[in-house]
Amino acid sequence: VDVSFIPALRAIVGATHILEDADLRRAYETDWTRRYHGSTPFVVRPGNTDEVAAVVAACAGAGVSLVPQGGNTGLVGGGVPRAGEVVLSLTRLNTLSPVDAVGGEVTVGAGATLAQLQQHVRAAGWNFGVDLASRDSCTIGGMIATNAGGIRVIRYGAMRHQLVGIEAVLANGQVIRRLPGLRKDNTGYDLANLLAGSEGTLAVVTAARLRLIPQLPSRAVALLAVPHTAAALAVTASVRAGTTGLEAAELFFSEGVELVRRHAGLPAPPVGTSPAYLLLECAAPANAADELSSALSTIDLPTAFATEARQREGLWAYRERHTEAISAEGIPHKLDVALPLDRLAEFEGRVRQHLREAVPEARPILFGHVGDGNIHVNILGLDPDDDRATDAVLQLTAELGGSISAEHGIGVAKTRWLHLTRSPADIAAMAAIKSALDPRGILNPGVIFGMSALRE
Amino acid sequence: VDVSFIPALRAIVGATHILEDADLRRAYETDWTRRYHGSTPFVVRPGNTDEVAAVVAACAGAGVSLVPQGGNTGLVGGGVPRAGEVVLSLTRLNTLSPVDAVGGEVTVGAGATLAQLQQHVRAAGWNFGVDLASRDSCTIGGMIATNAGGIRVIRYGAMRHQLVGIEAVLANGQVIRRLPGLRKDNTGYDLANLLAGSEGTLAVVTAARLRLIPQLPSRAVALLAVPHTAAALAVTASVRAGTTGLEAAELFFSEGVELVRRHAGLPAPPVGTSPAYLLLECAAPANAADELSSALSTIDLPTAFATEARQREGLWAYRERHTEAISAEGIPHKLDVALPLDRLAEFEGRVRQHLREAVPEARPILFGHVGDGNIHVNILGLDPDDDRATDAVLQLTAELGGSISAEHGIGVAKTRWLHLTRSPADIAAMAAIKSALDPRGILNPGVIFGMSALRE
Repeated sequence: VDVSFIPALRAIVGATHILEDADLRRAYETDWTRRYHGSTPFVVRPGNTDEVAAVVAACAGAGVSLVPQGGNTGLVGGGVPRAGEVVLSLTRLNTLSPVDAVGGEVTVGAGATLAQLQQHVRAAGWNFGVDLASRDSCTIGGMIATNAGGIRVIRYGAMRHQLVGIEAVLANGQVIRRLPGLRKDNTGYDLANLLAGSEGTLAVVTAARLRLIPQLPSRAVALLAVPHTAAALAVTASVRAGTTGLEAAELFFSEGVELVRRHAGLPAPPVGTSPAYLLLECAAPANAADELSSALSTIDLPTAFATEARQREGLWAYRERHTEAISAEGIPHKLDVALPLDRLAEFEGRVRQHLREAVPEARPILFGHVGDGNIHVNILGLDPDDDRATDAVLQLTAELGGSISAEHGIGVAKTRWLHLTRSPADIAAMAAIKSALDPRGILNPGVIFGMSALRE
Repeated sequence: VDVSFIPALRAIVGATHILEDADLRRAYETDWTRRYHGSTPFVVRPGNTDEVAAVVAACAGAGVSLVPQGGNTGLVGGGVPRAGEVVLSLTRLNTLSPVDAVGGEVTVGAGATLAQLQQHVRAAGWNFGVDLASRDSCTIGGMIATNAGGIRVIRYGAMRHQLVGIEAVLANGQVIRRLPGLRKDNTGYDLANLLAGSEGTLAVVTAARLRLIPQLPSRAVALLAVPHTAAALAVTASVRAGTTGLEAAELFFSEGVELVRRHAGLPAPPVGTSPAYLLLECAAPANAADELSSALSTIDLPTAFATEARQREGLWAYRERHTEAISAEGIPHKLDVALPLDRLAEFEGRVRQHLREAVPEARPILFGHVGDGNIHVNILGLDPDDDRATDAVLQLTAELGGSISAEHGIGVAKTRWLHLTRSPADIAAMAAIKSALDPRGILNPGVIFGMSALRE
């Protein structure tokens, strides 16, 4: 990057918001998985949308590439620099507007964290439909750019489904802005939905109007010992058809529960040991326990039931503590795939054998959001750069009609496998859209399409 | 159109599926509102996706423009020819695959009608989230292309929210296909969501994978006499926060109820005459009446309550019969706008006066889906080509931050007003996407952008 470029940016954001010092840059150059890192000449931290637009316009004019970054909690290397790009940090755009109680909506800056949003809307008597373990760090802009999911997609959808308006800066520095909060708006192409999940390659999200959900005080959790994935799917389908409050349906296995118990010192699950476990949560204005127990009344499987908060947390612990227990054993390969629901049991049944044949030392630990067909395949015992396990898992996913990225995105981690589940026609259409909106390829180059694609 | 082109199409779809005869063409050349019509040299009726792709490729090669058409129930002239385009009718693509009971999904051809889909999935114990009065004619492909809404958007969203996969033919004849049914899929741009609402300008939808919803046997309807729109909004917000089963929230006024009563011979509503009425419906696996009456327990307004089917229909009649009662008085201008919920009462309060000043002879009848901020402004007493009323209503909508098309789309009817609520940056971004995917502008020319735009 031409250093003569820096004074122009200083004039836009102020000297204190350009970070050139290596110590200050470091946190922006490496992602939290420790797998992805690069170097940036400097980090720019604009304080509002106009400044973002001016920075992007200046970069576009100089032909300088940008990597937009929120809370830097991505898992596929899409938010850290790769080849000397400028890092555009959005964390100062953290405004939270008052909650619109009539519409049940709120406007929020891209840099606000999920936890800040949650705290803000809960104080006003509402809740937000997406929740993630990284809530204290992940930002709303990053969650939109990656279309973040989490455990409640089964009920409320992913980030794109919460969007009722967006503000973003295009690669030419122009601002698109639709923030009034329109639940119905059929006036041309839905740019908000196009940007959701585009991983910073089409525009820089600066703010969003989000729908809120009611606070549901009545909650019930059931933990079931299930013999296998097919049984978990059948129970989930039955509960889904018999309730309207199903909010989570989590599947995990003895391999993970043993690890969690050892790591966290937990007793055996109250349903005993089992090859697989299904955790269900229902939430409603009232009587969630009646709804869930009635939906489970015909199911003859060992079941533990909890309504009181601490008991519910006790059942959830077997699932929620997977991530920390796995990380305590080493740096895992985290593969996040989705299968059509009618192929999920087959995938789960075959993937361990498939891995064993490809990489005998691989140690897989699976868990997932079974209602969405989403399985997180965590693999221990591998070198971080060993792609054989990734190859084996993603090939099997593609063979069964699945998606090689359910929630995390493509980033730079999965560009080599994109062709497995997106056809040449799909990829050509995506590349045409990318070229149309970012002809010089300055926004997050290398992400989704790979470094060799799309540059002039 | 060069007639030498026809034999090539005959070879693709068979001679009987090219309609050249004026009598046969007529039904495809005029929409059902009778406001929009044009002429086509011929109608092509392909029988499967490969034939659609071959027809589009042949047209692209010859530089011939196409107007995709489903059930021809659009309200903005987006599905009938304008300047001699070939009509591409998709109604023969009406395959319905077996319902996937594990995932609660179904794959359906673009030409199947909504009623056929409903019948098919109900027989398998499921339901579909979008319902419209034109269900016997409107097709799934047209509903996706226009992102159709209807009365249950408040609970289930519009067509785009039902999409879990799409198959479509691009302007170059290539097929994009993602039909396995993936609830989570973050592998690049969401082309399905881009095509939803694009009104046939980016691709021809040939099939879709749709999510289904449970059949909810317990239903309760309440009709409330409300003093004004603000009260209807407050009641709706309160019920929404206190229930999870709210499926419809319809607002209408004495002007419409008087017309309906005269036209259909109905008695006065059981809540008496009132300036405005709010109709609410809750649906649940059980106890919907408890849920709705509990949510209304603090509301002190005249309320009629119904749970039995015939009684529910009796309350619904005051709302549902608006369309036929209005049409019986003449050909209305149908303006379909959305407002931010916190501006809806102001809009309703001002629009009649605003109209009276602009067009004294205009006779407005309003009704709408109040939970979505969607108001249908029907105007009687005007010449079909008199745009003064359209101008007045859409200007007010824009002034209040609304959308000039909530459900119907832009078509050719509203292209002149698109700039009112989409900024130059928005429109430029949309036009760039259009040019990228359809560089020769052969797909539904004139729609959204106007006839002067986008042609080479």
